[in-house]
Amino acid sequence: MSAILLVAHGSRRQRSNDEIRELTNAVRAVNDRYDIIECAFLELAEPSIPDGLIALIERGETDIVVMPYFLSAGRHVVEDIPNEIATVTEAYSDVVIRLAPYLGASDAMARLLLEQSIRHDPTAR
Amino acid sequence: MSAILLVAHGSRRQRSNDEIRELTNAVRAVNDRYDIIECAFLELAEPSIPDGLIALIERGETDIVVMPYFLSAGRHVVEDIPNEIATVTEAYSDVVIRLAPYLGASDAMARLLLEQSIRHDPTAR
Repeated sequence: MSAILLVAHGSRRQRSNDEIRELTNAVRAVNDRYDIIECAFLELAEPSIPDGLIALIERGETDIVVMPYFLSAGRHVVEDIPNEIATVTEAYSDVVIRLAPYLGASDAMARLLLEQSIRHDPTAR
Repeated sequence: MSAILLVAHGSRRQRSNDEIRELTNAVRAVNDRYDIIECAFLELAEPSIPDGLIALIERGETDIVVMPYFLSAGRHVVEDIPNEIATVTEAYSDVVIRLAPYLGASDAMARLLLEQSIRHDPTAR
């Protein structure tokens, strides 16, 4: 039983949090491997990262990939997210929680940016 | 003569700004269409968006795609970046500057997140 927990920063602007929930739905739509895809927020929105992890564990997930939806390796990625995860791993030692590299570190990012630029380039007709 | 200007927020943390410059190099490495790929910053780092645009125009670029490296459609994406671009388009009416949708709006994002999760999933061996 494996799952993805997509982790975003969270915003006071509800529209931004809803964008993350819509993105979570979009990941579900392309998913052909995981039982569950959920999202959680570092701050300002619900669920928190520990609450999101515990909800997955209570649904029977034993392998969870935490995927940080962040562009740079700032304090949130380097310290805060690992610290939030650590509060759960200590209590559930039989669950494997793996932290994937943050989005901005993706090898596929450069190509995505190039393709998005071309798609919206009026000269590329 | 067409170019991409990749626009990031900018950070007090130099390492984050350097990440953007490295990403710009990575886009150059996969690019087979544009003459020039450069980056600029909304704040806290150089060049600014107007300076980045003017530098491209002075190098002869006449079609420029501005690609916002942002995850959500907050004020920076909706107001600040268009306003920065507008300060340049008024003075250079013979140059076409197109604003691409921000990164987080990419149709390819869900699949990128799924693939990055799988790649770092210890159970996906």
